[in-house]
Amino acid sequence: MNNEWLHQPIPALNNEIQAAALERQGMLTKPPGSLGRLEQLAVSLAAMQGKLKPELDKVRIVVFAGDHGVVDEGVSAFPQVVTLEMIKNFSRGGAAISVMAKQLGADLEVVDVGSAGELEALPGVVVQKAAAGTANFCQQAAMSEAELDAALNAGRDAVTRGLAEGMQLFIGGEMGIGNTSPATAIAAALLNCDATVLAGPGTGLDAGGVQHKAGVINRALALHADSLKDPLSILRHVGGFEIAALCGAYIAAAQNRVPVLVDGFITTAAAMLALQLKPELQQWVFLAHASAEPGHQKMVEAIGQIPLLDLGMRLGEGSGAAVAVTLLRSAIALHNNMATFAEAGVSEGDAV
Amino acid sequence: MNNEWLHQPIPALNNEIQAAALERQGMLTKPPGSLGRLEQLAVSLAAMQGKLKPELDKVRIVVFAGDHGVVDEGVSAFPQVVTLEMIKNFSRGGAAISVMAKQLGADLEVVDVGSAGELEALPGVVVQKAAAGTANFCQQAAMSEAELDAALNAGRDAVTRGLAEGMQLFIGGEMGIGNTSPATAIAAALLNCDATVLAGPGTGLDAGGVQHKAGVINRALALHADSLKDPLSILRHVGGFEIAALCGAYIAAAQNRVPVLVDGFITTAAAMLALQLKPELQQWVFLAHASAEPGHQKMVEAIGQIPLLDLGMRLGEGSGAAVAVTLLRSAIALHNNMATFAEAGVSEGDAV
Repeated sequence: MNNEWLHQPIPALNNEIQAAALERQGMLTKPPGSLGRLEQLAVSLAAMQGKLKPELDKVRIVVFAGDHGVVDEGVSAFPQVVTLEMIKNFSRGGAAISVMAKQLGADLEVVDVGSAGELEALPGVVVQKAAAGTANFCQQAAMSEAELDAALNAGRDAVTRGLAEGMQLFIGGEMGIGNTSPATAIAAALLNCDATVLAGPGTGLDAGGVQHKAGVINRALALHADSLKDPLSILRHVGGFEIAALCGAYIAAAQNRVPVLVDGFITTAAAMLALQLKPELQQWVFLAHASAEPGHQKMVEAIGQIPLLDLGMRLGEGSGAAVAVTLLRSAIALHNNMATFAEAGVSEGDAV
Repeated sequence: MNNEWLHQPIPALNNEIQAAALERQGMLTKPPGSLGRLEQLAVSLAAMQGKLKPELDKVRIVVFAGDHGVVDEGVSAFPQVVTLEMIKNFSRGGAAISVMAKQLGADLEVVDVGSAGELEALPGVVVQKAAAGTANFCQQAAMSEAELDAALNAGRDAVTRGLAEGMQLFIGGEMGIGNTSPATAIAAALLNCDATVLAGPGTGLDAGGVQHKAGVINRALALHADSLKDPLSILRHVGGFEIAALCGAYIAAAQNRVPVLVDGFITTAAAMLALQLKPELQQWVFLAHASAEPGHQKMVEAIGQIPLLDLGMRLGEGSGAAVAVTLLRSAIALHNNMATFAEAGVSEGDAV
């Protein structure tokens, strides 16, 4: 097991197509710039896919599930068994991301990269466990080096399966009771700030619960202080298996010229790690939505993009990204199908 | 011709269904509130439609087109003939709203309620003119009382046609070179502020052009100062035919229990007038997006809702509302199709 593939290059965007797409936007029957960010989205997707008229028929959503030893410290409003129960719910079509995948006509795959229990074989669920849950990072590193590599590789393997199906956009989702704690720990380590600045209610902690959770994370950050110098070491000491898989998947997608739509709080922590490892990833990433989890804003600012949506969502699973797919699709429908001034016989404006 | 129908009551929402929909949201397999505004949207649509599981298969988009005498004052970057040219473009499927309507599977109708020229018969275009363009409101009232009523009635008639097709959501769009000027004048009159506070570039004025436009609008506001006391008089003196039609259509839609999705700058001016006439309309209206037109924010604040999207769009035609339909559809797909905790056998959380 190794992670050398992480260091393979991420290609540059197609500049020629980008220029041609930008020129096309200026020819469409609308005042220049009047479709706002939809214009930029279409041009970016064209440059990523290397197609003047980009396509998003084949959207791939992969939900990585894992459990977290730190739940022993009482950091979540839901019991750990919910991770497994939700994997079943994804498989049966009852979860938010299942409904959205169906609504979008997207492929949905669930990868159990580290749940704490055993599951029967379920349709749409791939079992590729790094271990049966991480260790409690208040006591020791969350995972071993071999486990970290296994989780990163599970992310890459999910992308490989998606490529075989012709995926045109990659969305990573996550499920893991307690996983706002490792995500917060990662962000605090990367932003070099106290956990109280970033910790939030997750699935539903009250103010006292949030304070307790921040204290737990701060203890872990203190315990592992000497090991929080580089992204992979941060991931290994205070991360989670689903976060490692997301980090690997984002990098693998961009290495293979597939645009990435990042969901919310947990996935942004994974994206921050991936961007530290591979800064060239920046050009391949869209941020789908501003999470209601209060720490998300600082993480988003660090990445330097404005999320597409701000609807107060905080569910995870990839649900916010799934909703944002409709904006990307609107952007390319307009870009691909609007008439030009010449085609429509419409007079152009003057600078006034 | 008369407008007495405007004063017919707008029904209240269905409170029983609203309560049942809210209860359903609490039973779905997600932390309570974690879908943010999507939960509220689904509950509101349920209460409007009187259905626990609301439907948005039949979306109706009506683009009202009209011309404006005030273009003689040099307030637009595009020539007036573009209004007619764009009506043809809508009909042929090349405009942004045509593309979005197709993308959504929505019905699209164009109503020429007052273009300045003559058009051959075109598929999907209804001609119901109040007049061939408004008068220059810097010199006289934009329209007569009979013309105002004709335009309001054209809006109502478009809703009547939509009802016959079973429409479940009404979107009004607009096309009219120069129409940010009457929209700005209306908003300035209703908000009792100087036009310089609200005037913006529209289709593409530079700073000098915006200053000139604000001056033109302020002249009109001064000329008609004694007539800007009530919404219909404001509409008649400084409005436009497509704005009057939108105002009538919004009221007629709500009178018939059809939810309204308001687009951007021009349509928000129409909605402000309609809300002054019928405050009960408030419960039937969603604001789709924050326009890049700078005055829009103050208008939105006056209505007291946060728009669903903020993508820097400023095209009109109903295009921002069309993009936002996908959010409403995501909201009801989740609301209608997610499993409950009981159905999925998922454990519920505790208050922690």
